[in-house]
Amino acid sequence: MPYNQTRQFAAQLMIDLPALASNYKLCQTRVGPHCEVAAAVKADAYGIGISEAAPVLAGAGCKSFFVATLEEGIELRALFGSAAHKIYILNGLQKDAEDIIDFHSLTPVINSLHELELWAAYAKRTRPYLKCALHIDTGMARLGLTPDELEHLQNRIGEFADILDIEIVMSHFACADEKGHPFNEIQAQKFQNAADSFVFSKFSLANSSGLFRKDDWHYDMVRPGMCLYGLNPTPETDNPMKPVVKLAVPILQRRPLPEGKSVGYGADWVAASDTELATIQLGYADGFARLAGNKAKLYWQGHPCPVVGRVSMDLSVISLENVPRDLLPHPGDMIEVFGPHQSVDDLACDMGTIGYELLTMLGKRYNRRYER
Amino acid sequence: MPYNQTRQFAAQLMIDLPALASNYKLCQTRVGPHCEVAAAVKADAYGIGISEAAPVLAGAGCKSFFVATLEEGIELRALFGSAAHKIYILNGLQKDAEDIIDFHSLTPVINSLHELELWAAYAKRTRPYLKCALHIDTGMARLGLTPDELEHLQNRIGEFADILDIEIVMSHFACADEKGHPFNEIQAQKFQNAADSFVFSKFSLANSSGLFRKDDWHYDMVRPGMCLYGLNPTPETDNPMKPVVKLAVPILQRRPLPEGKSVGYGADWVAASDTELATIQLGYADGFARLAGNKAKLYWQGHPCPVVGRVSMDLSVISLENVPRDLLPHPGDMIEVFGPHQSVDDLACDMGTIGYELLTMLGKRYNRRYER
Repeated sequence: MPYNQTRQFAAQLMIDLPALASNYKLCQTRVGPHCEVAAAVKADAYGIGISEAAPVLAGAGCKSFFVATLEEGIELRALFGSAAHKIYILNGLQKDAEDIIDFHSLTPVINSLHELELWAAYAKRTRPYLKCALHIDTGMARLGLTPDELEHLQNRIGEFADILDIEIVMSHFACADEKGHPFNEIQAQKFQNAADSFVFSKFSLANSSGLFRKDDWHYDMVRPGMCLYGLNPTPETDNPMKPVVKLAVPILQRRPLPEGKSVGYGADWVAASDTELATIQLGYADGFARLAGNKAKLYWQGHPCPVVGRVSMDLSVISLENVPRDLLPHPGDMIEVFGPHQSVDDLACDMGTIGYELLTMLGKRYNRRYER
Repeated sequence: MPYNQTRQFAAQLMIDLPALASNYKLCQTRVGPHCEVAAAVKADAYGIGISEAAPVLAGAGCKSFFVATLEEGIELRALFGSAAHKIYILNGLQKDAEDIIDFHSLTPVINSLHELELWAAYAKRTRPYLKCALHIDTGMARLGLTPDELEHLQNRIGEFADILDIEIVMSHFACADEKGHPFNEIQAQKFQNAADSFVFSKFSLANSSGLFRKDDWHYDMVRPGMCLYGLNPTPETDNPMKPVVKLAVPILQRRPLPEGKSVGYGADWVAASDTELATIQLGYADGFARLAGNKAKLYWQGHPCPVVGRVSMDLSVISLENVPRDLLPHPGDMIEVFGPHQSVDDLACDMGTIGYELLTMLGKRYNRRYER
């Protein structure tokens, strides 16, 4: 009675790896052969599992990978084995991490003049022309050189060009998901102005949404994340990407609830009429955030089943009010969370959040199945 | 340059195991020697790590453990090795799981008449007096026998008493965290009425809050969860429990932001005056939900630092407006998320959620350190 035989009782998370590869290739087609498509694989490849996702992306042609943290970079380097694939650390160069980054053949995304000085000093101590990317802040005010730092650097550019190889100059959009948001053009213009100072570097600006918005923003490299994993980079239109994630969870119990009776913690949902409920094995400990309570809906054979009452740690309750009586599900039947009737983006919208958050908070208790 | 040397660069999650043991013992003292204190260790022991938490609780005297799912039960049984510790599966008996539950010496919490019939049929096929707990729904409308099912069972009680050992009859409060909520007494009364039918069973009603509210609710066994992990079971008064979890995250970068400039995605936080910001390595992929954006605060040396703008996947930005200029932190300094100045409950309150959700969504990228 091995452990994995039990997994038929758990929620089923299915990850479509060919769809991931297809999404990567669509990005490459969109930008054309002269622009490199890197992949953002931070946060465990947006929750789908970097150890499965990264080799598939590499197989689809990806050569450059962006992670957030040093630890993610080390994990990915161990996965790839050789240094044939480039791995960039978005969160930058932390003090005293120089030799570790170098040892694992990782490339820091330099986010400040201070980090640039640290990396240059390390290059002086070890060997010249160490590679890095350079992040110019054009409006996120999160990471990257400030306008003052950029101006300062422009006056000292020769000093650093003698010791470092600034492979890529990059920036990051704040509002690319919003079509026509004026901030996008402001950022693009600032980036173009900054880029003019770096004659030996390649340039990279666009994330998933930026990539699908405007050819001028492609430069030498785009860095999609969310769209690879099937989220919609252009929310105002149909999603050009293939869905990558499906999630179905088992019904544990069905129960009638008389009019006037309440459901769940706080007893804050009350049945307006006699109704039929199902309790499902999905709670906030599985990443199904409490935001879903009284807001989200799941699907049974195409019929929407609203979540009633608060989401519990391990359980939620759905109403079967929209399901015809002869189609009512039974314990053990699997309810659709993400699938043909509801995308990750759809559910996130009902919950008042974004698909990225749902993906990266996917829990540990699912039976994960990778379709190859 | 081993991997673990790099961990000084990550966020630090510290889990105080002696505090966990102390909290368990406080529950035992509270209920007295004639009431058993079981422990809810579902959802990876509320996010703190079941493989560390369960042995500590066992060492403090705990003999009965409640998990949510079959898979959690199997994991915990493997951890304990022998069947000396009782493990109850709250989510009940799923069809065709009978032999797996039995094989791993797990005890199902029977949630419906149908499940009771399945378990009785299995007992008839294998051996009599198989153990189970029986969950009576008194108002959660989530899991447990409905009033109709209970009435039905009361007429057939002899039939099941001949083949099953219903060790524990239990129910679960919906509003015990709200002192004086009238629903609590209604549920307690329903439970007492139901309990009268089960002369050979022990009784269990109280969760963490119920345990601290009223001695009448203790019966033979209490089943605390959240209070073991340091959350406040009586939110209207000081927390009687010791904090178990501390979290500190590194600053990656500090930056000035001029008046009128925005921060983060959507550019929806704008500086009202020139200000100083810090970017920290903590995002929603770490379980720091987007709810925290423009709402939560973190602490630097006791000074509250509001989160400004939206929380990103791997990063957040805090304002240093309350920090005296001579105490401003630097990259690498660790900002308090949970600690002496802010409890898990405090932060959850600012975010508009509950401490349980913050604990169970704790991410995978922390350096976890267990204090023994």
